[in-house]
Amino acid sequence: MSDIIEADYQLFINRKGRHLLGPGRTELLFGIQRTGSLRAASKELNISYQHAWSLIDAINQAASEPIVIKQRGGIGGGGASLSVYGDKLLKDYLAIEKEVQKFFRQLNMELNL
Amino acid sequence: MSDIIEADYQLFINRKGRHLLGPGRTELLFGIQRTGSLRAASKELNISYQHAWSLIDAINQAASEPIVIKQRGGIGGGGASLSVYGDKLLKDYLAIEKEVQKFFRQLNMELNL
Repeated sequence: MSDIIEADYQLFINRKGRHLLGPGRTELLFGIQRTGSLRAASKELNISYQHAWSLIDAINQAASEPIVIKQRGGIGGGGASLSVYGDKLLKDYLAIEKEVQKFFRQLNMELNL
Repeated sequence: MSDIIEADYQLFINRKGRHLLGPGRTELLFGIQRTGSLRAASKELNISYQHAWSLIDAINQAASEPIVIKQRGGIGGGGASLSVYGDKLLKDYLAIEKEVQKFFRQLNMELNL
């Protein structure tokens, strides 16, 4: 294969055959972890607050236990944080992604030999 | 990781940093290979003929040489076939996907130990 081509990927995590995490959802979770706010996290991702809510609902429903703990109301409103399980899952996601990255680096080296 | 989670992926091929092939485009190319017709291939994928044309243009522009040879006009119209280079690229894609599948099978076994 002499052409300069490169294999790339998007990583998804399914639970019991159901879509749990992908690049977009993971970014949203990292945003919540960092900002403690669903509103701030959705702004960072340029998605509507409404859409962020529906993503969180979908994530929580696909998981075995809640990943995001929502706090409606309060002064700022829209507070959100990850559960202990959510924190663990993101850690696992990063560990998996690291393995996948390593594999693709190796694969691309072999492709362009 | 005791939860039953599974890593999944979408595979993409870039050329010089530009998106060349992904799951949708690859399916379209296999359809053309099988049917010899862009119209038939786009029907199989439930996309419009117009959209299929624009995909083919994007693929041909991202590649180092044409992947799809289009035959406008004629009795049936919309005839299309893969170039020798296109055939080779699809073969390469399948070979790469086989490696990626193998890696993910192994990864998922380790995840759920």
